[in-house]
Amino acid sequence: MSERNLTMMTDLYQLTMMYGHYVNKTEGEAVFDLFFRKPSGNSTYAVMAGLEQAIDYINNLHFSEEDLTYLRSLNLFDEPFLDYLRNFRFNGDIYAIPEGTPVFPGEPLLRVKAPIAEAQLIETTLLTVINHQTLIATKASRVCYAAGEDGKVLEFGLRRAQGPDAGIYGARAAMIGGCIGTSNVLTGQMYHVPVKGTHGHSWVMSFETELEAFRAYARAYPDSCLLLVDTYDTLRQGVPNAITVFKELREAGHEPIGIRLDSGDLAYLSKEARKMLDEAGFPNTSIFASSDLDEEVIYDLRSQGASIDTWGVGTKLITSENAPSLGGVYKMTAMEKDGVLIPKIKLSENEFKITTPGYKKLYRIYDSRSHKALADLICLDEEEIDTSQPLTIFDPIDTWKRMTLTHYTLRPLLVPVFVRGKQVYQSPALSQIQAYAKLEISYLWDEYKRLRKPHLYKVDLSEKLYELKQRMIKERSACQAEKTE
Amino acid sequence: MSERNLTMMTDLYQLTMMYGHYVNKTEGEAVFDLFFRKPSGNSTYAVMAGLEQAIDYINNLHFSEEDLTYLRSLNLFDEPFLDYLRNFRFNGDIYAIPEGTPVFPGEPLLRVKAPIAEAQLIETTLLTVINHQTLIATKASRVCYAAGEDGKVLEFGLRRAQGPDAGIYGARAAMIGGCIGTSNVLTGQMYHVPVKGTHGHSWVMSFETELEAFRAYARAYPDSCLLLVDTYDTLRQGVPNAITVFKELREAGHEPIGIRLDSGDLAYLSKEARKMLDEAGFPNTSIFASSDLDEEVIYDLRSQGASIDTWGVGTKLITSENAPSLGGVYKMTAMEKDGVLIPKIKLSENEFKITTPGYKKLYRIYDSRSHKALADLICLDEEEIDTSQPLTIFDPIDTWKRMTLTHYTLRPLLVPVFVRGKQVYQSPALSQIQAYAKLEISYLWDEYKRLRKPHLYKVDLSEKLYELKQRMIKERSACQAEKTE
Repeated sequence: MSERNLTMMTDLYQLTMMYGHYVNKTEGEAVFDLFFRKPSGNSTYAVMAGLEQAIDYINNLHFSEEDLTYLRSLNLFDEPFLDYLRNFRFNGDIYAIPEGTPVFPGEPLLRVKAPIAEAQLIETTLLTVINHQTLIATKASRVCYAAGEDGKVLEFGLRRAQGPDAGIYGARAAMIGGCIGTSNVLTGQMYHVPVKGTHGHSWVMSFETELEAFRAYARAYPDSCLLLVDTYDTLRQGVPNAITVFKELREAGHEPIGIRLDSGDLAYLSKEARKMLDEAGFPNTSIFASSDLDEEVIYDLRSQGASIDTWGVGTKLITSENAPSLGGVYKMTAMEKDGVLIPKIKLSENEFKITTPGYKKLYRIYDSRSHKALADLICLDEEEIDTSQPLTIFDPIDTWKRMTLTHYTLRPLLVPVFVRGKQVYQSPALSQIQAYAKLEISYLWDEYKRLRKPHLYKVDLSEKLYELKQRMIKERSACQAEKTE
Repeated sequence: MSERNLTMMTDLYQLTMMYGHYVNKTEGEAVFDLFFRKPSGNSTYAVMAGLEQAIDYINNLHFSEEDLTYLRSLNLFDEPFLDYLRNFRFNGDIYAIPEGTPVFPGEPLLRVKAPIAEAQLIETTLLTVINHQTLIATKASRVCYAAGEDGKVLEFGLRRAQGPDAGIYGARAAMIGGCIGTSNVLTGQMYHVPVKGTHGHSWVMSFETELEAFRAYARAYPDSCLLLVDTYDTLRQGVPNAITVFKELREAGHEPIGIRLDSGDLAYLSKEARKMLDEAGFPNTSIFASSDLDEEVIYDLRSQGASIDTWGVGTKLITSENAPSLGGVYKMTAMEKDGVLIPKIKLSENEFKITTPGYKKLYRIYDSRSHKALADLICLDEEEIDTSQPLTIFDPIDTWKRMTLTHYTLRPLLVPVFVRGKQVYQSPALSQIQAYAKLEISYLWDEYKRLRKPHLYKVDLSEKLYELKQRMIKERSACQAEKTE
């Protein structure tokens, strides 16, 4: 994505709003928060991902002459505005939560403060990139959790991805979520992550017999021989043929890797195959499994004692099949007037959809003894918290739910990424992001990670922010009531 | 995609199989069919899409020196093989069904005949591209069907797409499926399709009052004024404010376009808003609606008399939310031996998953009087059908279900796209594909298009092909039985 200019990849209404502001000479900066209201699927958390590509996008923003010619042809814009676009660049501030951080509903994942036209243009692509990668990193995290501490998960979904980027960046996000490798060679090349794979059914079918096909594969890869055993009949033919070839390999001084199962009942087949391999003298071989897997199937197979050490997860991971979108939104929270940021709110009949106004920051509160994450706290940017004092937090809906913390540490989650249009943050290597994600997810209690009906993590508002929000809701409602009288 | 080299975007196992064939000196060409076993969601058909991008991909196939350096670093390949890759190009034949054609389970959408290593490399990306675009074109077709003859559907999903390509090519596919425009400016620019959009809630929030925001928008777009009326309170504030501005516009000699609803109960709100607009003297204004729409919601809203003429469909279209993948597969159907193509079959415990062997072609049978599509017929490529004679077709599972046709015409669906590696087919303009799709879908009886529980369209095998398949199933089973005795 670093070489692509996605400036024109935006919703038309961003450009018509930019033009509207240009014509109306709207002055001042606006603040937008990018957040989601509900994590995808059954998860209680999401895993932040996509920031590196969002940064590339911002750095590449510019309109080419071809772009301007096309925009002129739409008959929606005048020449002075097209001139303005010709010189367009992003001059604002972006703060963001680093990739790999577990994140929760209502939290600003990105906070943009920029002249309104600039903040508006970038809305769509920021959402596309962050929504997608966060969705897949989250799904991968769930799948890896189901596979357990010792289970290894490989991302195998490229052929079912929603287009090339979904395959390439989906695999990147899957690594952030905990996968140990991908079948996608391009992602491996771009992000220096392990690529994995052996052979398919067509390999077996391109030889007269399965045994011949296995021998041929062993000739090509004597020291990394992993055989797919289900083309014709797994237990009566595939595994016995694999064992024959494994014995031949061993006689020639090589040790095989193992077998892959890709159909049938994986609990039964893996247990039977394990026995056959053990009895034949290959107790150290691996059993890989694939075939329409997701976190729930993996969890159930493990609970039935399936003898599988590596899980190849395809379609259901790369598309996040049970919930194929993260509903991230980008909402205005403040707008400058005469040099002062005025908080903004969007009401809704649904309390859950009322936005939280103001220029805000975000803390994660950790228990200073267990280092487990206790809650997140959203405050106004100007607020200071004296960590030498006990801290009382409360639920912003059920405000009587209160908790006073004494042994805690605070960590600000938003870090500066762009300041006055200049990039001030370097994305870590993918392997570092992956290690960071693993650590941060380990700071969440298991109760938040349960596959079904996990416990809800607390995201609270500071007293000051809570009061601002309540006041604005009342003012706005009063103002509406007055207008309709 | 025409400028991107996606050669490395493949599953690693394609490269290890290529290397295996290289080391084992596998000779001869292989034939692969790309097909799906079940359309996505409740649909009984799919709409073929993605061929233009598949062609670009094939034309751009080559390994750069950087690619070879990376592949060398994996320690899986030897130097002669890397030299072979350095000179790699595609030399095979590809036949395909044109984009926009309604297609059915089991039919070859693409038929590849090429040296096995070449046919193998391209499997993954062909699947990624065709699976994705066919999925979205199909979903769009269902949504447009629900919107009815007069309903217009706009694709609005970019921000929830699974990455940039899913947004760009998803919008392209949505146009093939029947959408009349997209919010995605880049897709509009790349494929010369209408781009649509007005303003968002942030526009309204960036002014002191909604009325001020509407007036400012009308100043920018006096002749194409479409106002989003739900930021604060649709019926008590939004629609009255819009009417005020529409009257001011009319006094100044301009006619407004209409309003957009983006939340609340769209049936109720649209009917009330229609009355208010009509009474105020604006019976010709449009009502646009968006908000988590899909084919079922649109169908239900219409059946309740919702007064909506244009539907903006986002997340659920661009991700095909109820079924976010099409399970297209790519299976070997024949392999050359001593210059002769030998049919290949893959068995499965599940009869439904047994592949249909042989080098095949595909006809659509139309009724010569109504021009409606009657059934599709898969035959061996060498078969000739005498259309002056009655044609008896039968169901390949329930073979007693037979039908003899007298007034029919046959149309071969697979057209040559690459012959000996040379492109021999030019993709039509997107608008032409869209018109062709509309026509071809009109040739399907309504019974196949029903939203829920549609009737199944017949895809039959010729007698000769049926017999070949049955014989191979028996031979293969006998051969397996013998091996295990």
